[in-house]
Amino acid sequence: MSKGITKRSENYSEWYNEIVKRADLAENSAVRGCMVIKPYGFAIWEKMQRALDDMFKATGHQNAYFPLFVPKSFLEKEEEHAEGFAKECAVVTHYRLKSNPDGKGLVVDPTAKLEEELIVRPTSEAVIWNTYKGWIQSWRDLPLLINQWCNVVRWEMRTRIFLRTAEFLWQEGHTAHATEAEAIAEAEQMLGVYADFAENWMAMPVVQGVKTASERFAGAVDTYTIEAMMQDGKALQSGTSHFLGQNFAKSFDVKFTNKEGQLEYAWATSWGLSTRMMGALIMAHSDDNGLVLPPKLAPIQVVIVPIHKTPEDLAAISAQVEPIIAELKAKGISVKYDDDDKQRSGWKFAEYELKGVPVRLGLGARDLENGTIEIARRDLLTKESVAIDGIAERVASLLDEIQANIYQKALNFREENTFVVDSWEQFKDQLEKGGFLLAHWDGTPETEEAIKTETKATIRCIPFNSIEETGNCVYSGKPSAKRVIFARSY
Amino acid sequence: MSKGITKRSENYSEWYNEIVKRADLAENSAVRGCMVIKPYGFAIWEKMQRALDDMFKATGHQNAYFPLFVPKSFLEKEEEHAEGFAKECAVVTHYRLKSNPDGKGLVVDPTAKLEEELIVRPTSEAVIWNTYKGWIQSWRDLPLLINQWCNVVRWEMRTRIFLRTAEFLWQEGHTAHATEAEAIAEAEQMLGVYADFAENWMAMPVVQGVKTASERFAGAVDTYTIEAMMQDGKALQSGTSHFLGQNFAKSFDVKFTNKEGQLEYAWATSWGLSTRMMGALIMAHSDDNGLVLPPKLAPIQVVIVPIHKTPEDLAAISAQVEPIIAELKAKGISVKYDDDDKQRSGWKFAEYELKGVPVRLGLGARDLENGTIEIARRDLLTKESVAIDGIAERVASLLDEIQANIYQKALNFREENTFVVDSWEQFKDQLEKGGFLLAHWDGTPETEEAIKTETKATIRCIPFNSIEETGNCVYSGKPSAKRVIFARSY
Repeated sequence: MSKGITKRSENYSEWYNEIVKRADLAENSAVRGCMVIKPYGFAIWEKMQRALDDMFKATGHQNAYFPLFVPKSFLEKEEEHAEGFAKECAVVTHYRLKSNPDGKGLVVDPTAKLEEELIVRPTSEAVIWNTYKGWIQSWRDLPLLINQWCNVVRWEMRTRIFLRTAEFLWQEGHTAHATEAEAIAEAEQMLGVYADFAENWMAMPVVQGVKTASERFAGAVDTYTIEAMMQDGKALQSGTSHFLGQNFAKSFDVKFTNKEGQLEYAWATSWGLSTRMMGALIMAHSDDNGLVLPPKLAPIQVVIVPIHKTPEDLAAISAQVEPIIAELKAKGISVKYDDDDKQRSGWKFAEYELKGVPVRLGLGARDLENGTIEIARRDLLTKESVAIDGIAERVASLLDEIQANIYQKALNFREENTFVVDSWEQFKDQLEKGGFLLAHWDGTPETEEAIKTETKATIRCIPFNSIEETGNCVYSGKPSAKRVIFARSY
Repeated sequence: MSKGITKRSENYSEWYNEIVKRADLAENSAVRGCMVIKPYGFAIWEKMQRALDDMFKATGHQNAYFPLFVPKSFLEKEEEHAEGFAKECAVVTHYRLKSNPDGKGLVVDPTAKLEEELIVRPTSEAVIWNTYKGWIQSWRDLPLLINQWCNVVRWEMRTRIFLRTAEFLWQEGHTAHATEAEAIAEAEQMLGVYADFAENWMAMPVVQGVKTASERFAGAVDTYTIEAMMQDGKALQSGTSHFLGQNFAKSFDVKFTNKEGQLEYAWATSWGLSTRMMGALIMAHSDDNGLVLPPKLAPIQVVIVPIHKTPEDLAAISAQVEPIIAELKAKGISVKYDDDDKQRSGWKFAEYELKGVPVRLGLGARDLENGTIEIARRDLLTKESVAIDGIAERVASLLDEIQANIYQKALNFREENTFVVDSWEQFKDQLEKGGFLLAHWDGTPETEEAIKTETKATIRCIPFNSIEETGNCVYSGKPSAKRVIFARSY
């Protein structure tokens, strides 16, 4: 059953690359650091988008669209923000090419130099807050609850498909509020939406918490995060929601008249989730046989494969399959009947296993005689022959079962790989084996940095549900009031 | 009823700008030539996207995503294509900023110059056909039917919201086929999809036809177009579908083994429709009171406004309205109940008229006594008091009626403003009054160019349904076999 895929236990990183390729999800493009998301991969992303978009709208947000380009002077306005992104900016300097006067092809036209350079957005706080200045005058204009789906560019030196690419797709919410409390509540609410999405759609348990100062978004007062554990025990930051205080309002001079008639700066949040989640989805559930998809995000939830020798067999099977397809579709289940004669059923079985289709139904001549059908589930790789009567109901409940099972499996894995660590020796030992380390930390950036330098472990978050508990910092021995999560991460 | 909007008859262009602004659709951004699409405008675009995307999928296409950047060397490969787009390219030359050593702010880091410049995609044929080279080996890999939704940048000197912007949103389909006939059929099919969308969703009649050589897409063998007439009698090219022959396959060396085992270049199409259609939608239907939306694309199809003096009145009205909302929603109709107390009902009436909400229901204390409700339609600006019983059914059929009515109105307008023209004097006279001119043309680019220079009229298309009819070119007097459509255009 290996199909030539590198095993996770042999080389996790290579296994990941092969799953991306063999399941036909994406590929590196000829453009440095940019990926091509292939149709099957994009169909999963579309399902993610639809689910999230519905959640955003249900919480009162509207979509809009802001420019791709950020003038350099806008980016400069919020100082920390500028510093945070300056090193990875793609810069547009010219707006025209011309024929090469010295020969073939095209060259940049030096007379078409922009007066001010434009940055391809790495994120849109600057361009959006510059716009909000015109939209916000009174408390009546607040809250402003806006989201956009778009592409962004951060020039990364070391890229990895889905996980870290120069261009990626994401959504970015940008909200403005009349009070600090309201903005904090919004940032928390949206982290909750991300956690809900991760757990109930992606079947991926997450820890919710707050980032330390050094891991904060550039320009934020606080960054909230959801952190997931991959199968190699490393953490993956899966979505972040930022309370931006009045930083951007002050930088872009966005004031409103409050109910008392006084001018105040608006309070801000931003929150984003990207195609990085495709990487998380792959690494959370897949196995040495290929992709494993949670049914709720699977482009094809059920595939039906006929097993036949003659065209007459196929016709008889197809007649039997037709009402099953209709019944499944009526239940809102996406189903593919693969009666393509160019490939054999064995090849098809392997292919849909690679692609993570949650349920496979197989139907042969013998089944027709017996009134049976073979039902196989991708998560457990089990199959059984069952009565064809009532198969649609059975499939529907099996899809729910699979969704719940892969969530539980991931949760168990995380729990088995989360360790309470109390000494520095134990910390270093355990870290080599992977997992989340719950350890005391003295709260200083110096200790955080020293641990990172020595071990490559970072503080993933201070969990919201962390219990107050006096202890001593695992590194400095200084007093600490609660445990934080350390891990190596993507 | 003027609300201060400039009348179409006074200044059509100013009227357009005011509708865009007053209906809260979009605004110019601080970034030259780039627009901000505001939530209400974006909600309309989302409805367009959903309808088109469903049509693309129903015709067998899948979505994918390709890089934002096109290396300069890729763009150069197809010569005509390169020439066509070179003059409007935004060029990325650097990938990093750094602190200004001479003072405040950020400067481009000269050490971070790209070896090869990257062009922000003006369209994606080059980057996609470079990718297809890896995807196409055999006739079994064909047809390849892919679409992407994305942003593109064409550096226009004179911009106009929705109609001509430096950055715009669109979809671009890119397909590869084994035979010329199949590719042509695809290009025709997708033009048909665009025409279907324009007429049945946008309620905007279009003429389908083929472009002359000089109006073709750069790199195409043939460009098919749908052309619509705006209320000032000018044409608006609303969607184009290109048969690209083997041009891109040859430039990017995309060959496949055909069923006979021979190597052949693949045949290509591409087709695109953009946020320009938002401009078309506005200009096709709106009036001096504001936006008029076809019900199928209206984010809010029905608004219900309570007319009350006291909170008790409002409570009684709300109780009456609740089941109506439920019934409308059950019919798939989007409905907004505006019981916001910050604005008076008169203000609300004007606001929803401006925003083009197709149907408005008004309910007051008197209505409660009489069992009536006021129903107003945006297209005709008529209103009547009707029985509240059965109001949901009435609204549903009224929405259909409005959709049909605004289509018919636009069709009548186009027919009244389409003229058969046989002399040069008549041509020039009629052109000043606006409209489509059906005239004979000698088929030469020289005549086409001379007419354009003298009158600013271009050949919008050679209509598919043009009747074979001998005649003489309206300009040169030379023989001609069929009439083409001349018009001034956006």
